[in-house]
Amino acid sequence: MPIVTLLSDFGASSPYPGEVRAVLLRASRAVVVDITHDIPRHDIACGAAVLAAAAPAFPAGTVHLAVVDPGVGTARRGLVIASGGQWFVGPDNGLLLPAAAAVGRPQALAIDTARLVREPPSATFHGRDVFAPAAAAIASGVPPEAFASPIAAPVALPVDAPSRAAGRLVGRVAYRDPFGNLVTDIPARWLDDLPQRLVVVYRGGRAPARRARTYADGRPGEVLALAGSAGTIEVALNQGDAAARLGLRAGDAVVLEARAARRARR
Amino acid sequence: MPIVTLLSDFGASSPYPGEVRAVLLRASRAVVVDITHDIPRHDIACGAAVLAAAAPAFPAGTVHLAVVDPGVGTARRGLVIASGGQWFVGPDNGLLLPAAAAVGRPQALAIDTARLVREPPSATFHGRDVFAPAAAAIASGVPPEAFASPIAAPVALPVDAPSRAAGRLVGRVAYRDPFGNLVTDIPARWLDDLPQRLVVVYRGGRAPARRARTYADGRPGEVLALAGSAGTIEVALNQGDAAARLGLRAGDAVVLEARAARRARR
Amino acid sequence: MPIVTLLSDFGASSPYPGEVRAVLLRASRAVVVDITHDIPRHDIACGAAVLAAAAPAFPAGTVHLAVVDPGVGTARRGLVIASGGQWFVGPDNGLLLPAAAAVGRPQALAIDTARLVREPPSATFHGRDVFAPAAAAIASGVPPEAFASPIAAPVALPVDAPSRAAGRLVGRVAYRDPFGNLVTDIPARWLDDLPQRLVVVYRGGRAPARRARTYADGRPGEVLALAGSAGTIEVALNQGDAAARLGLRAGDAVVLEARAARRARR
Repeated sequence: MPIVTLLSDFGASSPYPGEVRAVLLRASRAVVVDITHDIPRHDIACGAAVLAAAAPAFPAGTVHLAVVDPGVGTARRGLVIASGGQWFVGPDNGLLLPAAAAVGRPQALAIDTARLVREPPSATFHGRDVFAPAAAAIASGVPPEAFASPIAAPVALPVDAPSRAAGRLVGRVAYRDPFGNLVTDIPARWLDDLPQRLVVVYRGGRAPARRARTYADGRPGEVLALAGSAGTIEVALNQGDAAARLGLRAGDAVVLEARAARRARR
Repeated sequence: MPIVTLLSDFGASSPYPGEVRAVLLRASRAVVVDITHDIPRHDIACGAAVLAAAAPAFPAGTVHLAVVDPGVGTARRGLVIASGGQWFVGPDNGLLLPAAAAVGRPQALAIDTARLVREPPSATFHGRDVFAPAAAAIASGVPPEAFASPIAAPVALPVDAPSRAAGRLVGRVAYRDPFGNLVTDIPARWLDDLPQRLVVVYRGGRAPARRARTYADGRPGEVLALAGSAGTIEVALNQGDAAARLGLRAGDAVVLEARAARRARR
Repeated sequence: MPIVTLLSDFGASSPYPGEVRAVLLRASRAVVVDITHDIPRHDIACGAAVLAAAAPAFPAGTVHLAVVDPGVGTARRGLVIASGGQWFVGPDNGLLLPAAAAVGRPQALAIDTARLVREPPSATFHGRDVFAPAAAAIASGVPPEAFASPIAAPVALPVDAPSRAAGRLVGRVAYRDPFGNLVTDIPARWLDDLPQRLVVVYRGGRAPARRARTYADGRPGEVLALAGSAGTIEVALNQGDAAARLGLRAGDAVVLEARAARRARR
């Protein structure tokens, strides 16, 4: 049975995720998996980062239905993106592309609502009225070309790619997880370029840090840089909240570099 | 396979939703769908509003198991309500009726616990010990008459119906969603009675507002009245929190009327 | 179809529960049930108490995958515990044992990761990379001996057993539920030893209390001791938050005893 995942900023306490599930269950035999409904509201970049972290774990054939959609009901398009055998359905506002790029080479189509659903959708809840019917159709084997047309350039979030030069890694916080770990967009393998004694340079200053393998490697209060489970570098504290300690959040720039050598002190 | 939905104030961090699911999975082949477990505790009116918003999205045959139940273990009855081909199971305290009325003509039965379960239920967790067995039985095709008897008058929440007169719509806030949108009980189609320039009259004063189609229609800071996805009028702010701005919450009265004409200013 | 439950401190807003589900769905035909992902981070005792409350509701064959794991990636072992026909998979840090003991006689095995998965796991996410493959294997009928070896002494949390003597019940708060009810570890049947007029002795003082059957039995503001749904004594307030009122939390000692007789006052 195909999997349909759900990600949104609807809030787990609202009726909206249940309404979306109802449409999916009426129109398909999919197994529905919540990724989360607690993306901070209207935070497209956070939703994009969480979806990009989760998507690679899913098998080919999975349909990801994602809705963080402040422009619902306006002229913004609805998308289906095919990539690496998976499908991504949601608004054309940058939410879907990073995840689609994480699993393959994205091919985008714009949904033609009139070809998808008989009744005109509400102006405020396309998750239920447009994207769920689209996801259910794809999960049931309908080719998206039946209700969507290829487009060249879906909307992309403005993001600088991470870079490295002269033992200096430059990136940004993609996502702050509930532990306070700062998941960056810097590839984890780049960490091998650096020595064990590091410094994290950030908006608020410079923090000495250590290259580590596990969260428990750190002494209490020590900032760690380690290879995170999403394949990128994480900045963390052992049993502490790195985000609170450094005052950083998603989108903030982060630089990792070697700590300047200095004489040992007693 | 039949669908059983769950709605409660148990809290998503508690073991209680899992225990209810365990009973359902042991006793039926139902697909279990969480609507939410984060209804504010003991807030029957909020639970009723969320259930009423979600239920119409579900197909005939769905069993809704809802528990917001400060009177658990007392003489309050347990109910099965049949309506529009769907079923509603939970305490007889007003929680179920608005949803049942939203999908059809409610017919209520009172559960006779001794005919339903062998072991006497706990005094504190009828969700697991009474309502889950009842929902599982119905989802498995057992007619509720096998363990419940028709009653004439289930407990109803004291609610005034919305009204309109002379271009003035009177209702109340049914539900404040996680975005801060104020979902009222006023039918969305009544919005056509009003001009575009409105005023919202509420406990805290009067706010100029605009009749809109989408959330994004508003200028920053502008109060909007629009047709919400539940078929009723919503009072909202574009990317803002209308509930916080107006200081309103579920149950509060709301009046929408035409703004008085006045001379244009420079 | 076998059931796999999930319990963690990952946070419901993170991508991690979805990644674990993806691994389970790829590798088994299990029905996956979330118990919760909102255990306070790194709070092993709370996770253990919630799992122990939920596990007895599940049928034989259920696999419980639980992860509260501050030592992830270190030398701490991964466990499979068999007990009462159920299975418990997670870190060897005390999280699993109370639940395993609640359903039978625990038999522990240590996971040999190299025999379980081909790729070396990440150092930070064994829930996805070790425990989910182990749970999926067991749910698919693979005997755990295929990838794990019996051990004598899994790590146990330091806990004093509850006791009773001379009409005095001594225990501790196992779990504070979202209603503020204090679920203790004192067997509910011991409540029969006590008269109706009680006193709760705790860190912050002494509170008069009443032996009750339901939450609604209490007068407003009255502290109640009643038989909870987990089979232990709960200290509660009718429609109030006993934990906030008494300032108690998980792990705190609680004593219940008869209130000293005194002359009636007017």
